[in-house]
Formats: sequence, structure tokens, C-alpha cells
Amino acid sequence: MSDSRPIGVFDSGIGGLTVVRALTHHLPHENIIYFGDTARVPYGSKSPQVVRDYAAQDTDVLLQHKVKIIVVACNTVSAVALDVVQKRSRVPVVGVIIPGAEAAVQATKKKRVGVIGTVGTIKSDAYVNALRQIDPSVQAFSQACPLFVPLAEEGWTEHKATELIAKEYLFPLTLEKIDALILGCTHYPLLRNVIDNTLHHAVALIDSGEATAQAVAVLLEEQGMKNMSRLKPNLQFYVSDVPHKFTDVGERFLGQRLGKVHRVPAFPA
Amino acid sequence: MSDSRPIGVFDSGIGGLTVVRALTHHLPHENIIYFGDTARVPYGSKSPQVVRDYAAQDTDVLLQHKVKIIVVACNTVSAVALDVVQKRSRVPVVGVIIPGAEAAVQATKKKRVGVIGTVGTIKSDAYVNALRQIDPSVQAFSQACPLFVPLAEEGWTEHKATELIAKEYLFPLTLEKIDALILGCTHYPLLRNVIDNTLHHAVALIDSGEATAQAVAVLLEEQGMKNMSRLKPNLQFYVSDVPHKFTDVGERFLGQRLGKVHRVPAFPA
Repeated sequence: MSDSRPIGVFDSGIGGLTVVRALTHHLPHENIIYFGDTARVPYGSKSPQVVRDYAAQDTDVLLQHKVKIIVVACNTVSAVALDVVQKRSRVPVVGVIIPGAEAAVQATKKKRVGVIGTVGTIKSDAYVNALRQIDPSVQAFSQACPLFVPLAEEGWTEHKATELIAKEYLFPLTLEKIDALILGCTHYPLLRNVIDNTLHHAVALIDSGEATAQAVAVLLEEQGMKNMSRLKPNLQFYVSDVPHKFTDVGERFLGQRLGKVHRVPAFPA
Repeated sequence: MSDSRPIGVFDSGIGGLTVVRALTHHLPHENIIYFGDTARVPYGSKSPQVVRDYAAQDTDVLLQHKVKIIVVACNTVSAVALDVVQKRSRVPVVGVIIPGAEAAVQATKKKRVGVIGTVGTIKSDAYVNALRQIDPSVQAFSQACPLFVPLAEEGWTEHKATELIAKEYLFPLTLEKIDALILGCTHYPLLRNVIDNTLHHAVALIDSGEATAQAVAVLLEEQGMKNMSRLKPNLQFYVSDVPHKFTDVGERFLGQRLGKVHRVPAFPA
């Protein structure tokens, strides 16, 4: 059996390209369609109600492309609107929360896990609830880090100011003696070095996107939905806006050339 | 003559409340209707095309309320879409660029003016062009400061990291020996102290919102459009999203209690 339909991935913006990067690593033969809602980014500072409206529209963009699975790369959407995507979709839906939480439970020895993310993700307690469900003996401690996204987008990944900000955000978590930390936002892997240094290399950093890509690979294998073609796979990128420096920033997140990017009209259609 | 219709003010989000604050100071008897597009904020990192689409929709929200004048508090909209607002509106339209540039020309003695703003505002060269038109002998130097908005919203106005970031952004402008600096974004007045310290109190800081409020007062006076009623004026606040901490952050920007905030449905209607 072979299923050449693309994997659909959506995100509030370009951060989800770090998830595409992980997918191309674990599933190098899959066609992928990405949609980034760059005209309305960010979602992480907005209310659940608005994020749920946007998530429904983003899902429809991917469904128009006959995707075989929907990967919700955006942590905020995964946290507050996964049910919206699932209800709308006839294909399997994978968010980043459960895979990220599972990877953290496997990584922690002291059963003390930290979670960082946007205000929306942290306020939802989605990771905390997932951790508890997977292993009720795990204690979770969370911290919103609103400045990390603009710092990653500005490319200030090694800047002294970023170190200071990381220190301030992460200090309460160090007091809790966590030994695993979920990077609960697509942008945070770009700040991995500064986070790792701030935590004195003593905490396992869990990239939810990476964990999600592995979960998608397992799911496609189990369901017999992998693409068996060995033709060069097709990666297609759709966005609702093509702002200044889009390609530069996007390629930094994706880790390779973006190629042609299509703009889809503003919402709703 | 007395015109009790409200002044309409719109912005990409809550930053424009600093302009409302200046308006209530200069025009304490005017009714004001504010619209903040908090569901799609920020505009400053988005393309001119998208900002123009949003500006048209924002204008329509205010026009439905029979405003007597439209004040475009958002620097990015004023820079890239003022013509869109003007074309759509039968009432006078005032943006923040010309008043800000005029105030800077009056303030500079060395004829060397700096401009800071969002990527969208700076790339448009709107302030630079306005300065040249008002006084061709003025030299302008501009710098985008993308991290200033999230820092102001996070409330980190006195933080060491903010000082470092301000130093980095403003350093090229100090080399140009500017003696006036346009704060070309509604959020920047909240960082006035750190900017002033970074520039060693040697540069006149021009608050475009303040200059705009003064321009609006003059215009209403000249056109006989002031409200002569001495009843307590009515301030009404509309937003497209009511995110977490909205009231806290909004009241910091406005400098007074917000009262009831109305949510308008997502766009387009």
C-alpha cells in the first residue's frame, strides 16, 4: 500500500517550519503541504475564542488540498483548538502537545518537568494536563515566555539580552529542580543553545515538533499510509501574507531553501 | 457651532490608547470611539498589501459609528495606507506621520532627525519623506526596532535586557549625531525613559501621538467641529479580540480605567 497524498501542516506563521524540518528528516519521501497564517500571526497572545475561529479556517485550507493527515504544528492551536480541527477533518489529526508530553515523561528521571510556551499555551494548561494523564506521578511547572518568539524571529539567538531574558523566565523553573523542559512553541528550538546554557546543560530539552514528527511517522506506518514512491517529494508552502524578510526567516526555520511560496487570499474566503 | 459626534480612533491593537490619552488631554470634552484590531495585531511586521486590506476594514468599523473625524493612531497604517482610509472616508482623516514629522522639524537644531518604528513603518520611508517635504535641509536616519513592541507589552520598561536592546538599536543613530528622535510607534512612549537614558538625555524625543492630538485639536477648532457640550464625554472602546491581560495592558497605555470594552465580530463582516 502506498498513499501519495500530502501531509498537511499548519501553523500561525512560519514557526511550524521547524516541524516540517523534523518531518522531512523522519519521513523523507512524503509530500508535504504547509500553511502558515502569516497575515494574523501570532496566535499565542490571542484569546482561545479567536484562535479557535482561525484554526477552523486554517484546517479548511489544508482540506482543500486533499491531505491524508493534518499536523497542527502550532502549540497554541494544539492547546486550545485541537477539537475544532478534529471535528472538521475526516483525516487523522496530530497536535504537538501529546507527543511533546510523552517525550518529556520518558526523559524525566526526577519526575519534574518544566513547560515553556506562549501565554495562550501556558494558560490552557494543556501540557500540564497531558503530563498528568500520561504519568500522574509527574509534577509539572510552567512559564510563559512571550519575548522568545520576537527574539527568535529577530535572529537574536546568541545575544546578551536574550541570555538575560532567558535567565529571568527560566529562573522559577530552576528553583523547582526540573530535569526535563518542554519547548512548547515552534520558535523555541531556535533558542535551544541559550536555554541550554541558562540551565547549565542539566535539563533535557524536549522539542515538541521533533516528538510530533516521530509520532506522525509511527502513525503513517501503522495505518499503512506511507508514501512508497521514491520520486523526489513535493514540498508546497502556502501563507496568508508574504511579509518582509519572510524567505530569510523561513529558511532559517526550515533549514533548507523554501522555493516558491504561494499566497492564499485573506480569510474568510 | 457644536459637533457632538465622536472622534474615531483606530489602531492595530491597544498601542493607540496612548493617542487616546493625548486626545483626552488636549480635547477633554470630546466623545471618542476607539477600535483596536487586537485579533490581527501586530501590523508592523506585515506586508503593505495586508495592512491596506485591514485598514479599509478598520475604517468601516469607525464609519458605522458616525464619527466626525478619523485619527489613524497606528504608525504603520499611517505610513502605508493613509490613502486607503482617506478614499473610504467622507470625514477628515489625520495620521500620525505628518504631525510627528512637523514636531521633529521644529525640535531639531542640527537638522538631524532620527526615526524609529516597526519594520513596516521604517521600510515605507514615510517619515523620511515627510521630513524632507517639510524641510529639505533636514537629514533623516531611521531604524526599525521590532523588539520594542513586545517589551512594552510585557511591561519590561526598566529591565536591563531592554537597556541592552535599546543600546543596540539606537547606537547607529547616535553615530549620526541626531538631536531629535521620532518615536514612530504607539508603544514607544512607554519606553521613553530607557530611550532617553540610552541617548544620555541629549536628544529631543518626539511622541507622534502627542503631536497628532495637538493637530486634531487645531483642525477641530479651525473647522468649527469641536464639541461644546460640557457633559461628561463618552469614551467607547471596541476591539476584535479581548486577549489575556487586555485590561491591565490597556489601562497602562490609556493612563486611566478602560470601562466596558465591546468586542466586534471577526472580519470581514
